[in-house]
Amino acid sequence: MEAIGRKRWVIPEGYIPPGSMVNADRALLSHEAACLLNAGDADARVRITLFFTDRDPVGPYEVTLGARRTLHLRFNDLKDPEPVPPGKDYASVLESDVPIVVQYTRLDSRAAEIALLSTMAWPAD
Amino acid sequence: MEAIGRKRWVIPEGYIPPGSMVNADRALLSHEAACLLNAGDADARVRITLFFTDRDPVGPYEVTLGARRTLHLRFNDLKDPEPVPPGKDYASVLESDVPIVVQYTRLDSRAAEIALLSTMAWPAD
Amino acid sequence: MEAIGRKRWVIPEGYIPPGSMVNADRALLSHEAACLLNAGDADARVRITLFFTDRDPVGPYEVTLGARRTLHLRFNDLKDPEPVPPGKDYASVLESDVPIVVQYTRLDSRAAEIALLSTMAWPAD
Amino acid sequence: MEAIGRKRWVIPEGYIPPGSMVNADRALLSHEAACLLNAGDADARVRITLFFTDRDPVGPYEVTLGARRTLHLRFNDLKDPEPVPPGKDYASVLESDVPIVVQYTRLDSRAAEIALLSTMAWPAD
Repeated sequence: MEAIGRKRWVIPEGYIPPGSMVNADRALLSHEAACLLNAGDADARVRITLFFTDRDPVGPYEVTLGARRTLHLRFNDLKDPEPVPPGKDYASVLESDVPIVVQYTRLDSRAAEIALLSTMAWPAD
Repeated sequence: MEAIGRKRWVIPEGYIPPGSMVNADRALLSHEAACLLNAGDADARVRITLFFTDRDPVGPYEVTLGARRTLHLRFNDLKDPEPVPPGKDYASVLESDVPIVVQYTRLDSRAAEIALLSTMAWPAD
Repeated sequence: MEAIGRKRWVIPEGYIPPGSMVNADRALLSHEAACLLNAGDADARVRITLFFTDRDPVGPYEVTLGARRTLHLRFNDLKDPEPVPPGKDYASVLESDVPIVVQYTRLDSRAAEIALLSTMAWPAD
Repeated sequence: MEAIGRKRWVIPEGYIPPGSMVNADRALLSHEAACLLNAGDADARVRITLFFTDRDPVGPYEVTLGARRTLHLRFNDLKDPEPVPPGKDYASVLESDVPIVVQYTRLDSRAAEIALLSTMAWPAD
């Protein structure tokens, strides 16, 4: 399939809930994900920059997304150059060298039940 | 009414929760749906391709959507060429021969209460 | 303020949950709303057409939205030409004679707790 | 990074739930937020106008968003020219002197558990 999407996407919302339900497995841990689709025939090199309320941006975080693959990347799993602090407001810009499509989802399990939100990211190029 | 929308739509998020509340009826089973509207006067032939994290795309799944009709298609109900595995990340591309509009919704009833998310799909043509 | 938005909006998802929590007041009754903003200086005449899975479209439902006003219109409250049946899949197209912006929200209180979803409608003109 | 986004954004939905769970800390109080990202190198001066169902618009509320910063602005915290009344339908238009990106999120903790919704705002210029 031909490449689909845009090369730059923005997610103004970002907040990893600082806690999870008791005995949550990985699927039910509070987390935020950028869901990436690379429908095309070339691997995508994606660079993520995080923005904060009271300090300079951090990044780039670098991720490779294979051709004809999806990656539901948890912000919780980002480590280099530094982890994303739970309980802090942030925002993100994702830049890819080939067109991709990006959606943002949060699962919040601070309480006994889960809550979900999702929205398409905003295509900026 | 004239045809409304686009011919290709993308949903990067996809995850059928692997479980549901006890004694859930069909309406409250954990599920994901692509809500399609064909406002125009010709039937729509829709082809769906699924993308995964660690294997090649699967499809096309073929669906017909009547003129002046909506279809809230559950990914759980897709069977041919193969069912959508619960608990696995996926993404989808929907291609129609006439303009349609597509929205994506998940109902998660793994816990005792339900959680919902929804977003318009991304129009790619 | 000048008029903002578009004249035609589409919401492919639509499902009024057939039930609500015990003793829910109006705010917590299961409902779906089209949130309309008319930022401009002329009243908006809005016509809504509903689409179903297995029968012809119904409408138009007619609503007037004052200049510089918002209206969070519950689909549950539509009466003429006929009420919206709970528990049935539907979709909607909203047409206005002046530009408006439309967002779609559902509150589901079938269980003891509430679940929410929302997305911007899709601008079709 | 260069400035990203648009200068005017619209959120037709707006409703601060009139109540919160018992003993909620600030993070879990019922609230609505406009999440703003200013990726560029110049501070953003943002003016917010609120629209209501049955009275004239209120505003502008004025906010400054630093260069390369995000601000998750709670509508609950707006004070001047007047607070946003809980339990009342409203809508908002945000105007910035430089491009920004805006997302809208609600956390509802009226019940014992939380519910979330989010969507990208609608870019109007």
